[in-house]
Amino acid sequence: MGDHIEDLPDILLEPVVRAALSEDLGRAGDVTTDATVPAGLKATAVIAAREAGTVAGTRAAALAFQILDPTMRCRVEASDGTAVAAGDIVMRIEGLARPILSAERVALNIVGRMSGIATATAALVAAVRPHPTGITCTRKTTPGLRILEKHAVRAGGGKNHRFGLDDGVLVKDNHIALCGGVAAAIDRARARVGHLSKIEVEVDTLDQLDEVLAAGPDAVLLDNMSVDELRAAVARVAGRLITEASGGVTLERAADIAATGVDFISVGWLTHSAPNLDLGLDIEPSSVSAGWK
Amino acid sequence: MGDHIEDLPDILLEPVVRAALSEDLGRAGDVTTDATVPAGLKATAVIAAREAGTVAGTRAAALAFQILDPTMRCRVEASDGTAVAAGDIVMRIEGLARPILSAERVALNIVGRMSGIATATAALVAAVRPHPTGITCTRKTTPGLRILEKHAVRAGGGKNHRFGLDDGVLVKDNHIALCGGVAAAIDRARARVGHLSKIEVEVDTLDQLDEVLAAGPDAVLLDNMSVDELRAAVARVAGRLITEASGGVTLERAADIAATGVDFISVGWLTHSAPNLDLGLDIEPSSVSAGWK
Amino acid sequence: MGDHIEDLPDILLEPVVRAALSEDLGRAGDVTTDATVPAGLKATAVIAAREAGTVAGTRAAALAFQILDPTMRCRVEASDGTAVAAGDIVMRIEGLARPILSAERVALNIVGRMSGIATATAALVAAVRPHPTGITCTRKTTPGLRILEKHAVRAGGGKNHRFGLDDGVLVKDNHIALCGGVAAAIDRARARVGHLSKIEVEVDTLDQLDEVLAAGPDAVLLDNMSVDELRAAVARVAGRLITEASGGVTLERAADIAATGVDFISVGWLTHSAPNLDLGLDIEPSSVSAGWK
Amino acid sequence: MGDHIEDLPDILLEPVVRAALSEDLGRAGDVTTDATVPAGLKATAVIAAREAGTVAGTRAAALAFQILDPTMRCRVEASDGTAVAAGDIVMRIEGLARPILSAERVALNIVGRMSGIATATAALVAAVRPHPTGITCTRKTTPGLRILEKHAVRAGGGKNHRFGLDDGVLVKDNHIALCGGVAAAIDRARARVGHLSKIEVEVDTLDQLDEVLAAGPDAVLLDNMSVDELRAAVARVAGRLITEASGGVTLERAADIAATGVDFISVGWLTHSAPNLDLGLDIEPSSVSAGWK
Amino acid sequence: MGDHIEDLPDILLEPVVRAALSEDLGRAGDVTTDATVPAGLKATAVIAAREAGTVAGTRAAALAFQILDPTMRCRVEASDGTAVAAGDIVMRIEGLARPILSAERVALNIVGRMSGIATATAALVAAVRPHPTGITCTRKTTPGLRILEKHAVRAGGGKNHRFGLDDGVLVKDNHIALCGGVAAAIDRARARVGHLSKIEVEVDTLDQLDEVLAAGPDAVLLDNMSVDELRAAVARVAGRLITEASGGVTLERAADIAATGVDFISVGWLTHSAPNLDLGLDIEPSSVSAGWK
Amino acid sequence: MGDHIEDLPDILLEPVVRAALSEDLGRAGDVTTDATVPAGLKATAVIAAREAGTVAGTRAAALAFQILDPTMRCRVEASDGTAVAAGDIVMRIEGLARPILSAERVALNIVGRMSGIATATAALVAAVRPHPTGITCTRKTTPGLRILEKHAVRAGGGKNHRFGLDDGVLVKDNHIALCGGVAAAIDRARARVGHLSKIEVEVDTLDQLDEVLAAGPDAVLLDNMSVDELRAAVARVAGRLITEASGGVTLERAADIAATGVDFISVGWLTHSAPNLDLGLDIEPSSVSAGWK
Repeated sequence: MGDHIEDLPDILLEPVVRAALSEDLGRAGDVTTDATVPAGLKATAVIAAREAGTVAGTRAAALAFQILDPTMRCRVEASDGTAVAAGDIVMRIEGLARPILSAERVALNIVGRMSGIATATAALVAAVRPHPTGITCTRKTTPGLRILEKHAVRAGGGKNHRFGLDDGVLVKDNHIALCGGVAAAIDRARARVGHLSKIEVEVDTLDQLDEVLAAGPDAVLLDNMSVDELRAAVARVAGRLITEASGGVTLERAADIAATGVDFISVGWLTHSAPNLDLGLDIEPSSVSAGWK
Repeated sequence: MGDHIEDLPDILLEPVVRAALSEDLGRAGDVTTDATVPAGLKATAVIAAREAGTVAGTRAAALAFQILDPTMRCRVEASDGTAVAAGDIVMRIEGLARPILSAERVALNIVGRMSGIATATAALVAAVRPHPTGITCTRKTTPGLRILEKHAVRAGGGKNHRFGLDDGVLVKDNHIALCGGVAAAIDRARARVGHLSKIEVEVDTLDQLDEVLAAGPDAVLLDNMSVDELRAAVARVAGRLITEASGGVTLERAADIAATGVDFISVGWLTHSAPNLDLGLDIEPSSVSAGWK
Repeated sequence: MGDHIEDLPDILLEPVVRAALSEDLGRAGDVTTDATVPAGLKATAVIAAREAGTVAGTRAAALAFQILDPTMRCRVEASDGTAVAAGDIVMRIEGLARPILSAERVALNIVGRMSGIATATAALVAAVRPHPTGITCTRKTTPGLRILEKHAVRAGGGKNHRFGLDDGVLVKDNHIALCGGVAAAIDRARARVGHLSKIEVEVDTLDQLDEVLAAGPDAVLLDNMSVDELRAAVARVAGRLITEASGGVTLERAADIAATGVDFISVGWLTHSAPNLDLGLDIEPSSVSAGWK
Repeated sequence: MGDHIEDLPDILLEPVVRAALSEDLGRAGDVTTDATVPAGLKATAVIAAREAGTVAGTRAAALAFQILDPTMRCRVEASDGTAVAAGDIVMRIEGLARPILSAERVALNIVGRMSGIATATAALVAAVRPHPTGITCTRKTTPGLRILEKHAVRAGGGKNHRFGLDDGVLVKDNHIALCGGVAAAIDRARARVGHLSKIEVEVDTLDQLDEVLAAGPDAVLLDNMSVDELRAAVARVAGRLITEASGGVTLERAADIAATGVDFISVGWLTHSAPNLDLGLDIEPSSVSAGWK
Repeated sequence: MGDHIEDLPDILLEPVVRAALSEDLGRAGDVTTDATVPAGLKATAVIAAREAGTVAGTRAAALAFQILDPTMRCRVEASDGTAVAAGDIVMRIEGLARPILSAERVALNIVGRMSGIATATAALVAAVRPHPTGITCTRKTTPGLRILEKHAVRAGGGKNHRFGLDDGVLVKDNHIALCGGVAAAIDRARARVGHLSKIEVEVDTLDQLDEVLAAGPDAVLLDNMSVDELRAAVARVAGRLITEASGGVTLERAADIAATGVDFISVGWLTHSAPNLDLGLDIEPSSVSAGWK
Repeated sequence: MGDHIEDLPDILLEPVVRAALSEDLGRAGDVTTDATVPAGLKATAVIAAREAGTVAGTRAAALAFQILDPTMRCRVEASDGTAVAAGDIVMRIEGLARPILSAERVALNIVGRMSGIATATAALVAAVRPHPTGITCTRKTTPGLRILEKHAVRAGGGKNHRFGLDDGVLVKDNHIALCGGVAAAIDRARARVGHLSKIEVEVDTLDQLDEVLAAGPDAVLLDNMSVDELRAAVARVAGRLITEASGGVTLERAADIAATGVDFISVGWLTHSAPNLDLGLDIEPSSVSAGWK
């Protein structure tokens, strides 16, 4: 189960939604709707969940309708982070029938994908409870949708890792090898970034961990370790660094990993492989007042 | 299993890849790599499959490296549509170590997602064999990635449906209701579009089908019908229209649906819920010639 | 004479109009108007036809004013597809005098060009009456204005052909030569495109037509044929394919070509060589209430 | 007849050409060519004139091919400003057959339109010879193509007027009326613009001309005057200002107008209504070396 | 001291302001404000001068708030060109607290920089009074901000030189050397540009000036001359050309240069090296009505 | 004096440089150069310092030439971070004369401004030596140039603070007031951002500092404190937090502030008010081989 969270500002969402509408409308627009639906016809539509899950992406979905027609009214009934059951109404849309139908698929593609991510995150967050372990996402996001997907993870109760290569340092094995050692890599990174950036180092083995502890970064990523190794690593770190486990995290293994005492578990499949949540849009028949004259 | 297919032209791929790189590099670029890896250092890397599947998106992945450094050499070993086993090499990259590491995540995000779609498609294509039924995707694609995802479906042996609202007519229940009947909707659509566009109508019941057959579109979408209903529908159509089944299509049900004789089965989850194929990039240790002076 | 048709959605028009305004305003804007016309001064202007013709592009022209000043009120008196006489008012604009003058040229450039296309189309449509032949445009449009020009053709009573290289298949002589035969070309195209796309083949001679009929595309383009050849071709097709004539179509020859029974006549000069319709904008003197204080 | 002129720099042409390619390729690219023409096949093509005229737009046309494939070789045989006869070769293109065919229509649309403008300009320039009168274009250009169209006018031997509302001052009747007099308008404009900008005032009558002469701008636009009025105006100006005639300029009237002694004749229809020059692209059969394996 | 001047049109300012907001908001927005300030909280803020100077850039600063929240109300108390003392209020902003805080830095960066330029210009304008000499800027502006900086110069009472390489001709020593002489350069330039463009030539010595006077451009740029040389040059020009002095202009030397009788003094450091004017934004404590519920 | 630092990747610089070129070239390009300099003429140019300072922005300046002409060769003689004397050569450019002259102003505007920032930073860095205090910039950068200006600060030996509102948390007085206390603000921020982000709080008084120390952020910004207050604050913090001083930092006061033991001094005027470094471009006369034929 996720927590209610606030929407992202429109200025961050609009370019994504506008690009999605352009992609779908192409050069000639929604020829089916323009040909068959009278221009002045008004309607009310609802977006409802067709299966249980956690909602995310509602503001972006509302923007899809409002970019096509700024007079469109969208009332969100289940805001981002809300757990819904099958049949629950997520959003109510009132306005001209044409832009409702023309924006339908883009709105559903967004809210379906983001709710899928929120739902998967909420399941993982529930699985590690009552441990204080945070569930966090990675940079394994869908090209172009990172901001929305990171938001969906928060809607599901998860935490965000870095948003990109520029807002945090994560030193991996290749960096260490090419730099000539972990201490050198941390020193060089420290000299490059501002004093509000933390430095994290990835390790695969307990031996590497000792070297990292000596070099003193802010956090350590324990990659692909067994539960036993993780437990040993947490003991060895002894609170001096933030600890993050990654690799092979499943819904089944999550509680055991959390029990090792790691601070965070990071999970790539939350954003790259969570299935969409099934939602649908229906025009309320009673709302339609007129047809072709 | 999919078929080898040709790459999309670079002019269509570049904007997507460039946007993904910008998203990941942000304002300050790959600070970890720039701080830790010497500027002139060269390396060879391989992208390899970590599980069996069908590859797609290799050209876009190669562009990620080449946009960062036009001198980068990328040799595709498993071109789009090729079935690979765990461990098979998909692409070999030679060039400066920095841009290899900086583009790694974007390249993997693209080829992982597209190969996931191709793999799911290939499984469904295999499931309906030896029926002549085509597997086709929908507009339920990821915002901004439609062209790549449609290509991935073809790489998996599937067929493409419309690319957007403007390049084909699909009359759905809402259109019919708001237009005042299926015949009127088809007439109005026919008057709107060019003579190279076909018109398809969606029906939920056999009764609706009779009305549609009288109105004479080019294709009919049989939505959410049981296998028995589909068989009856195909008989009633008797080859006069292209038939397409959709709704509730699973890997298990696919062969039974194909056996009804429908021409196409369209499947939304190929593009919105197929899990990524697991691929990884490794620097070949022997390829690295130097470190910080 | 054209038919009244509905406006394109704003989301498709705005980028074109905004780019045209930027092109005209440059870096420093309308320095003449900004220097000479007081900022708060209001005015009413009318756009009127200075010669008879068929109107198109009014919504885009209105957007030119409204993008510069969202409070501008534009009332279209002669909507797209309307036949007007010299002196007829096409649009009435009320608002601040400055943005009226600054957008004037862009608005007139758009509505003049689109009305020129609609007028030429309407003349050709009238010329083929009472034959059921459709007049259709081609891809010989002005770079960047295809969507508006295709719309103008519909405003003139014409039909649209494909919007681009991606939304329909038209196999020409070069394709056939390079593919190794017309049957192979049709087969390969059929395998590539979705089931809502039709396939058309271009032929120059009756001999080629026989080969095409055997291969079974959806439509045939009869290029640069004499009226006698066209009549023979239509007889030979016998309703099995859509027939389209092109090449050497003049206002004088159009009726004879239509009389051959072809389904469509496609005409490049509708969009590449139709002269602008002459329209002008005038400030109504009585509307101006004040000057520099 | 026009003069040979140099190409515009690529940085100014590329955005226009790239946008035209995107418009034509849409989301899925040239599906006909990609399906029917083998990927590695090479060919040579020529663009030739099908009627006599003056060439313009060759560099932009060449870019259409080179943007699709940077290895394409384009040799211009008739550079911008050259007079050609029917059958003359304008450009020779060597490279892969696919991008040649995919860029063909965009290249022809550009070179056809620009050569049409150059041809019309050259005719008008010839008509006023041996008078020293300059033929100049206006801001009545096609939205988005102003830079190319102004260049085409120069290719035809014409001169350019302002490129937009920001790079010169042209005070028209509405400005004068709303500003409260011509002297005030000139003063206010002079205070606003830099010392490298000239100020031109439009007049419709000889009476207005006297008032303008008193106010002392740099140039006067004599709009819609008869030949007699123009002659009187030129006498009254007596060389103190640059004189420009506009309105009702036809190929027939041009010499008479030039004979009045005006410095420039400006003509809107050069850019808004000149018909395209007919050019075509042909693949040289002997150049094609191979087909599908 | 500067003069009050009118705002640039929003269509010219919006792209600059929107880009600045995107640069500051990055991918995740104002995380501090979004985390700490309740969404519905309203506030009033003032932007006030912290030192004396001349204001510029207020409309662009107001847009920063209104782009983030179109309902924001901004009242400019000291419009562009107004001289303010330390403590004077420049703008009052009412609306939601979040977008006020999120746009604060962008708004201050713009209005601070532009007011710095206006202040420096006003000082220079005051220094040359009562000479009629105009103070003018150059193309030595900050990349991307030319339109705003040229406006700021006008706000300070200065004049604008060309906006770019395309809206005026300035022949410098390199052009003359590479062209083969000043007369040839002027002839070639005259043939290239429209009749509303003036031609200016740069000279370093009085000898060069004689050659330029013979060639007859519209203006001469007297570069890096001593006050004595300038006086001699003005005498030699004798009103036949516009004269412009540049190079080594300081606040101290300005009056002496003006006293030579040159028409204009152009100064690069107005736009490239003027320090920002210090302004600050404060939330009015009494305006805040509520906190987290 | 600054340290040599590496260039930013081209993908981050190109959009800035390309926009600056477009701003300067406008619609018609460099008409002076195109008219006066023969197209094929080659030349060698040098950019040299005209006063002593520290260089920055050379890669972006080189791109200005290479974007106009990809065959241009640019050899940087004084890379970013190098201290130069008046007369020292910074860059050598070989290629066609036209693009050298057309890109000259943009290249100099960039390298002049960035070198100005680097020079000011280097002076401040020198002033605090031998204290270990870091000199850091702020978000008071020029709109659109943040990435280049932050790089210039590093070239001068300084450090970067946050790149934007999204990559670090800085809680200021307004946030605290509107959130209801510093502890609440820190808690809410911690819950919002990822575990690689640090949290900094701004304080104006020693009393506020105590409250902040109790709440436990990662860093504290000591704003507008006297040297005595700073010394007391550093003592009170006792190494538990990173300390940063800001406000009223001058070259004269810098050493005293550094002597208080603060970890960082942040300075807005490095980026908003540093004067440009004077650099010039000269064509080497001997390099020019030919003129107009």
